[in-house]
Amino acid sequence: MEHGYHVAIVGATGAVGLELLSILEERKFPVAQLSLLASKRSAGRRLVFAGEEFPVQELTEGSFQRVHFALFSVSSSISKAFGPIATRAGAVVIDDSSAFRMDPDVPLVVTEVNPHALRRHHGIIAHPNCSTIPLVMVLNPLHRRARVKRIVAATYQSVSGAGARAMEELDQQTRALIASEPAEVRVFPHQIAFNCLPHIDAFGEMGYTGEEWKMVRETHKILEDDSIRMSATTVRVPVFRCHSEAVNIETEQKITPHEVRQLLTTAPGVVVIDEPEKSQYPMPLTVAGRDEVFIGRIREDPSHDRAINLWLVADNLRKGAALNMVQIMELLSAENGR
Amino acid sequence: MEHGYHVAIVGATGAVGLELLSILEERKFPVAQLSLLASKRSAGRRLVFAGEEFPVQELTEGSFQRVHFALFSVSSSISKAFGPIATRAGAVVIDDSSAFRMDPDVPLVVTEVNPHALRRHHGIIAHPNCSTIPLVMVLNPLHRRARVKRIVAATYQSVSGAGARAMEELDQQTRALIASEPAEVRVFPHQIAFNCLPHIDAFGEMGYTGEEWKMVRETHKILEDDSIRMSATTVRVPVFRCHSEAVNIETEQKITPHEVRQLLTTAPGVVVIDEPEKSQYPMPLTVAGRDEVFIGRIREDPSHDRAINLWLVADNLRKGAALNMVQIMELLSAENGR
Repeated sequence: MEHGYHVAIVGATGAVGLELLSILEERKFPVAQLSLLASKRSAGRRLVFAGEEFPVQELTEGSFQRVHFALFSVSSSISKAFGPIATRAGAVVIDDSSAFRMDPDVPLVVTEVNPHALRRHHGIIAHPNCSTIPLVMVLNPLHRRARVKRIVAATYQSVSGAGARAMEELDQQTRALIASEPAEVRVFPHQIAFNCLPHIDAFGEMGYTGEEWKMVRETHKILEDDSIRMSATTVRVPVFRCHSEAVNIETEQKITPHEVRQLLTTAPGVVVIDEPEKSQYPMPLTVAGRDEVFIGRIREDPSHDRAINLWLVADNLRKGAALNMVQIMELLSAENGR
Repeated sequence: MEHGYHVAIVGATGAVGLELLSILEERKFPVAQLSLLASKRSAGRRLVFAGEEFPVQELTEGSFQRVHFALFSVSSSISKAFGPIATRAGAVVIDDSSAFRMDPDVPLVVTEVNPHALRRHHGIIAHPNCSTIPLVMVLNPLHRRARVKRIVAATYQSVSGAGARAMEELDQQTRALIASEPAEVRVFPHQIAFNCLPHIDAFGEMGYTGEEWKMVRETHKILEDDSIRMSATTVRVPVFRCHSEAVNIETEQKITPHEVRQLLTTAPGVVVIDEPEKSQYPMPLTVAGRDEVFIGRIREDPSHDRAINLWLVADNLRKGAALNMVQIMELLSAENGR
């Protein structure tokens, strides 16, 4: 208790919640006390952290007494309702939902890209969307060197981005179809097994989905540059873990694939795997469970004299979610000097 | 025999070969005699066409006697070796491989786009790549109206594009993984089940794959306009049937999503399904087995004042392969007046 923090995980039984537990343990974050919070339905379950069992408790207004850090990975409506309660109780909230991301008073932070933004927090720090995080980690060094003008992205997003129930749905649909039985559809709007859904989050302005707008607007906020033009098509694919993205990047100054490779090789948290002649490029299969953002297929765009195509893969539950949340907490606790 | 054609299918036991048989039957093409040709390994198998069993014979130099149309769906080396033998024997060859596609003396035809090119054939007609066909069917009306300047495409291609053995591989890997057993990799360079591979065909010039260059060069040839600038990222996804593409299209004249919808609604062989508010858009699951190219998610690109984003899905074994081959044969036989 004396040499550590009281950490609360809100949404502890979800896909990101479970990943938070294993990352806290892995990185030996000084946890003195742990509160695992979830809906009434999950209360009473027990989860293991550092070899010890902890009970899952129902999230209530009284859950945040003496909590230092509250890590929220729940729906944006639950975050909106309980985030301010947690800050009033004195906790610093790190929130994985879209509830506060575009609030000008809330920093939106990727630790390798804009850690400085943490300084102006007022109790709530927003964690970006899992498809935005790897993208800005790649864009940041390119933007500094050559100014990114325009981005066209197409994503290949795994079901874990939609949570533990979505992972179960892919598993159960696959089992059913392989046994020539009908696939039951509950979480996604259509069958996801052996299919692609060009539909993540609700449809909105101009026919783009919430997910597509998040990628654009969060990129602007994190890179602190609204002049970057961007459009995305976000697609769910039958993969359990890791989001991939095919990204076309137009820069103001010409930049060669060789320079991009050099810039990304030295960028923090980024790994370049780009040996196509040996069939070496990032894939969900090999990136699952890894902390870094993996980049490959870096090539000049023959259709434009200042554009680059590349392929990125990141584990949406690690850097895309739990890892970045823990890294934010690490930075705050380092500043705190505790 | 009198009222029809002698049709030979080279590669009859492959994924496209089997689809050719069912499309010939469905469309009541006047088949008077049928030769099913394959490698020695498959010789002796029997396939059903129009309720009758036909033996599969080994492909030899003597296979093309009195054949009117020889439909080739085999590797490009087999096409190169046996295509000219078939034409010398008097057959018209319709070839699904890349062997002759870029030969200036060989027409490369999508029946709805450039049927006129058929007139200048010298015995061989090339059938485009399965990811090019749906793309040019969409580009053609837009190019005529507003002049297409640049295309950035990302594909989501099914395993059937790599043939029957690749479909088996996805099936077997999925069964193994679901049973917590290791997945065996034979056809693809890496596991495809629950994974994405940014690698279709061999890597070549500038780091692009053969598949990516085919999309560019075949589009130029079919639309008869080399000034269209284009780059693609082609990706294999764990889907059995249908290729999907996220396509960004920049035009010389501004064109609204409403106009695009109108143009595509009246384009031959194209169906628009674009009601996102009802979760209606094309998907591999619903397009499998269909003849048309399906388009949805047509929207203005906020990152460019003359660009459109759209999502297309087509059955790569139907319009992407067997159907277009049969349609070419139908056009030739109509001209023939037989």
